[in-house]
Amino acid sequence: MEIRIASGKTLHAVACESIYKTLKDNGIYLVSSCGGKGVCGKCRVRILEGPSRIESTGKLRKKDIEENFVLACKTFPEGNILIEIPEESRLVIGDKIALSKSKDIIDFLHSAEAFISPLVRQIHLDLKPPTIHDNTSDLERLKKALSERGINTMRFSHRFASSMAKALRDASWRVDVVYTEHHEAVSLGPPDNRERYGIAVDIGTTTVVLYLVRYSDGGLIDVGMTYNSQMRFGDDVITRIVHATEGGGMQDLHKAVMDDINDILAPLLEKHAIRKEDVDSAVVSGNTTMAQLFWGLDPSSIREEPYIPTLNTFPRWNAGTAQIKINPLAPVYTLPCVGSYVGGDIVAGVLASKMHRNPEISLFMDIGTNGEIAVGNSEWLITAACSMGPCFEGSGIRHGMRATEGAIESVKIDPVTFEATFSVVGGATPSGICGSGMIDAISELFFSGMIDQKGKFARNLQTDRIKVEDEGPEYILHRGELKTIVLTEVDIENVIRAKAALYAGVSVLLKEVGLTLDIVERVYIGGGFGNYLDIDKAIMIGMLPDLPKEKFAFIGNTSIAGAYLCLLSEEMREEAEEIAGKMTYMELSVSRGFMDEYMSALFLPHTNIDLFPTVKGFYKK
Amino acid sequence: MEIRIASGKTLHAVACESIYKTLKDNGIYLVSSCGGKGVCGKCRVRILEGPSRIESTGKLRKKDIEENFVLACKTFPEGNILIEIPEESRLVIGDKIALSKSKDIIDFLHSAEAFISPLVRQIHLDLKPPTIHDNTSDLERLKKALSERGINTMRFSHRFASSMAKALRDASWRVDVVYTEHHEAVSLGPPDNRERYGIAVDIGTTTVVLYLVRYSDGGLIDVGMTYNSQMRFGDDVITRIVHATEGGGMQDLHKAVMDDINDILAPLLEKHAIRKEDVDSAVVSGNTTMAQLFWGLDPSSIREEPYIPTLNTFPRWNAGTAQIKINPLAPVYTLPCVGSYVGGDIVAGVLASKMHRNPEISLFMDIGTNGEIAVGNSEWLITAACSMGPCFEGSGIRHGMRATEGAIESVKIDPVTFEATFSVVGGATPSGICGSGMIDAISELFFSGMIDQKGKFARNLQTDRIKVEDEGPEYILHRGELKTIVLTEVDIENVIRAKAALYAGVSVLLKEVGLTLDIVERVYIGGGFGNYLDIDKAIMIGMLPDLPKEKFAFIGNTSIAGAYLCLLSEEMREEAEEIAGKMTYMELSVSRGFMDEYMSALFLPHTNIDLFPTVKGFYKK
Repeated sequence: MEIRIASGKTLHAVACESIYKTLKDNGIYLVSSCGGKGVCGKCRVRILEGPSRIESTGKLRKKDIEENFVLACKTFPEGNILIEIPEESRLVIGDKIALSKSKDIIDFLHSAEAFISPLVRQIHLDLKPPTIHDNTSDLERLKKALSERGINTMRFSHRFASSMAKALRDASWRVDVVYTEHHEAVSLGPPDNRERYGIAVDIGTTTVVLYLVRYSDGGLIDVGMTYNSQMRFGDDVITRIVHATEGGGMQDLHKAVMDDINDILAPLLEKHAIRKEDVDSAVVSGNTTMAQLFWGLDPSSIREEPYIPTLNTFPRWNAGTAQIKINPLAPVYTLPCVGSYVGGDIVAGVLASKMHRNPEISLFMDIGTNGEIAVGNSEWLITAACSMGPCFEGSGIRHGMRATEGAIESVKIDPVTFEATFSVVGGATPSGICGSGMIDAISELFFSGMIDQKGKFARNLQTDRIKVEDEGPEYILHRGELKTIVLTEVDIENVIRAKAALYAGVSVLLKEVGLTLDIVERVYIGGGFGNYLDIDKAIMIGMLPDLPKEKFAFIGNTSIAGAYLCLLSEEMREEAEEIAGKMTYMELSVSRGFMDEYMSALFLPHTNIDLFPTVKGFYKK
Repeated sequence: MEIRIASGKTLHAVACESIYKTLKDNGIYLVSSCGGKGVCGKCRVRILEGPSRIESTGKLRKKDIEENFVLACKTFPEGNILIEIPEESRLVIGDKIALSKSKDIIDFLHSAEAFISPLVRQIHLDLKPPTIHDNTSDLERLKKALSERGINTMRFSHRFASSMAKALRDASWRVDVVYTEHHEAVSLGPPDNRERYGIAVDIGTTTVVLYLVRYSDGGLIDVGMTYNSQMRFGDDVITRIVHATEGGGMQDLHKAVMDDINDILAPLLEKHAIRKEDVDSAVVSGNTTMAQLFWGLDPSSIREEPYIPTLNTFPRWNAGTAQIKINPLAPVYTLPCVGSYVGGDIVAGVLASKMHRNPEISLFMDIGTNGEIAVGNSEWLITAACSMGPCFEGSGIRHGMRATEGAIESVKIDPVTFEATFSVVGGATPSGICGSGMIDAISELFFSGMIDQKGKFARNLQTDRIKVEDEGPEYILHRGELKTIVLTEVDIENVIRAKAALYAGVSVLLKEVGLTLDIVERVYIGGGFGNYLDIDKAIMIGMLPDLPKEKFAFIGNTSIAGAYLCLLSEEMREEAEEIAGKMTYMELSVSRGFMDEYMSALFLPHTNIDLFPTVKGFYKK
């Protein structure tokens, strides 16, 4: 039995496995917030030919069903079938979200004024070859030579000892010993001046990004990236935690992300002719759940009150334990987490922003499925996370998609004709709308009077751009030959909820420390999302606070940037620990003030328009 | 195809596998010094019925061949066969060699004036359950509680962290934490006052002995013992080292001894209803090669000049690494070795003898395939090993066997009639002669004038007790219905070489430190062999120095006794390290004096009879 895809590929299929699973097993990932449970309605594919059994069409609209769209996760082939995968159902990775915005990654390190000091050190030893009269064991000989160089506390793993005898003899007793900064022996070999390398890994809920870095000068050899394959078990961390608690689920999740990392790394090493033994340190940055899953630790207590992770700070375990295919004794540094919903990625972000070094007060926001916020300066830091929902990543929005090729990323609407003009990522035919496009569109709809402060469409406008469907009114952004792209009232509600959560988080956090917005000198915005954001429009819908534009800085993927810094600098690692240690974590879900702030922020831009003087000015016009 | 054994069992056989291998695979071990290579001629079995292919009969005598004896390792069944395994070919284990001679093992500990302080400690912690306002991670919570109790340097393995979250919650945050004396977390659970246990293991080249010990009072719960299955790869350490260098050989050897340990342990735990998680420390004592093989480390450099082991002192790796089936995080203490041929078993022996605590000078001898000697006192210690050959363990002697049931262990010979009377271990029909029997017999043959100072039979004696065969003359010890037991001139030569090596070792060692025998106050004799030794006779053949009998003490299996002490006492472990640290290791194989001393000692009792005044006295009579 076969599934043929209209674009070309033919896959082997079996009757008991859904189209979704068969595609996934063949490396074709579909958008799915629910992990293939028939709930989210995002994994739409179209059956062009052949018989299939449809178990459920939940969330599909009448029109979709008429056009033979099915949910891939709830449809099973019953013979050879031909399918079409719409662009918006297919997960495709964007290049832009990989790199830190800092133009030159080495400059970035220098800008932090840090010396290069990786997790591992190297020392050259000329051991005296043993003789019949100097017949101490290999290990004692090595220990003695180290001791003569002032190193008395080295620990030797069984794995190291197992290869030591041969390595010493092969190198004729003249060796370079690599060891961790915490004095654990890593490797031993002839002094050959070979370059050595480390990897920095950002494990996002959605993407995994890997930097391959040379120690000698901190040079970035290459970058690799992939979707986090854990997505097959659900788009968000909560769904994945639930999966982890099911039989074998944790191993699935651990293996998925380790395979991703190894799958990115192997071709990079091959391309640059680097032996995996010469990659002898790693830094990992991710949210608290990603960090637990990276180490194969049960994350289940994260989602149960009082929301406790097993580990916030991670012992320096090694690559062999994690199953990263580099030198198995390579130490792995995990960016410390602050709480269940503020992880090492945020600590990395604060580190990369350098806000923890400045006396002036800064605000850091990492915008994704969760909005993580940190406020503070060189004296103090406070942090919180608010659930924004996945709408800015394209989920829960009718034609939502990530900021990849074909996404409408900016929108202008003529206030007279109500016609839209827009730009599309990659310049292609639009196939959906991404976060920045939504913000633009909602901002424009609002200022053209098409939607009111609650995000409801005006019912009396004379325009065929607004259409009323079963689920309510929607604005037609693009009427294409293949596809019409709309923004529904429900979509707008979702965006308003998300922006309200973020704004309320910022307000509560500032109130908690008795400060007001005007004291904030810098606003750093991180996350893949940040690359496309129009600040003015985001202020206009009340997503970002109404501060002078020059106070805002986009700093891109700050999680990988922080990981890179920690890979190369002991000082940076110490600072990361300090940041995590001094950050006060505030649990918004139990904050009384949060709900009030949230309710007030469910308006465009806000119930209290005085908080948005710029917007008020426009509005008056 | 089947091999039926006359005594009952029937085994499945295949044509390509030797009888030796089929027996071995079914747990029936034959004596074999060469590990089944057709060299030693010890694995004799008799084919009673059925066809077989005989590849070699090397070392079998004409008469053997006539009686259908074959070498089991060089004979392959070609159909169903019926065989008989002579007693002397079968490896059987003796009970006596297991136990330390000290009557009461706990008294032994007290006699060392050591407090009970195992490798692991336990602390009770009442953790505050987390709340939404006190939401640090599980590990930080645990660290904080430990810190409040003054423990700030605990290390947490990945394995420990993996089970921690559940264990804390299952115990409602009131836990006992077990950790090593070097502050590595081992386990965590509810405080249930359950007894906890450790194991002490003596890995001899020939036997593996295991003590199961309760911490609370040091009580010996049970003892287990088995042959070291590494024997299937060769009787002595050198043969095994050679095997280790062959493909997969090291894994064979490591697995063999680990299986032995686990096979002894499992039934003991079942018998006493002890959970393996509650066994959370282990001590291992063995010679340097055994210690390397226990840890799966390549021993090959031990047999190549300048004879360097990979490790003499062993990091405190855990049971999981060693693959002992107890708590996988249990620390394993390995008795430190001194050199390639003086191992942890000798350090354990010196420790158990307590000679390192006394100002008077003592001599310690561990007699086995190797004779290891230590001389010294509380100030200094010097040690050496001399190769005695396996004759005292029954190998290389026509009717030699270990001191197990059926072994002639003491002999008297009438100087007039030349008739022998003897006692047999277990009182059974004699099936061979063990080390103490040989010493007795040679001593008696010498003093009755049947052999001369060189160990050659007098040719002019009128007795049918002496018979001349192809290989030379031999003395008939026992003329049995089933079996005649003889001692050949070649056997006697072998014993003289062995005793000469031991005596020469002692002489050289004493000379090295400028002392003479009369200054030695105590002579401790350890090893399984020591249990049966007649001191007077051993002096008479010049094996032991001619000192007053009251200076000698048998202390049995000192290796297991030392391991037991180290299992229960930090002080003992420190003393073991001190002993190993201060012992000077002398390599006899390169000592110029050794060869001279050895040549002089190839006489009964010695070329210089003045060294043996007692013997001289007898001799005059």
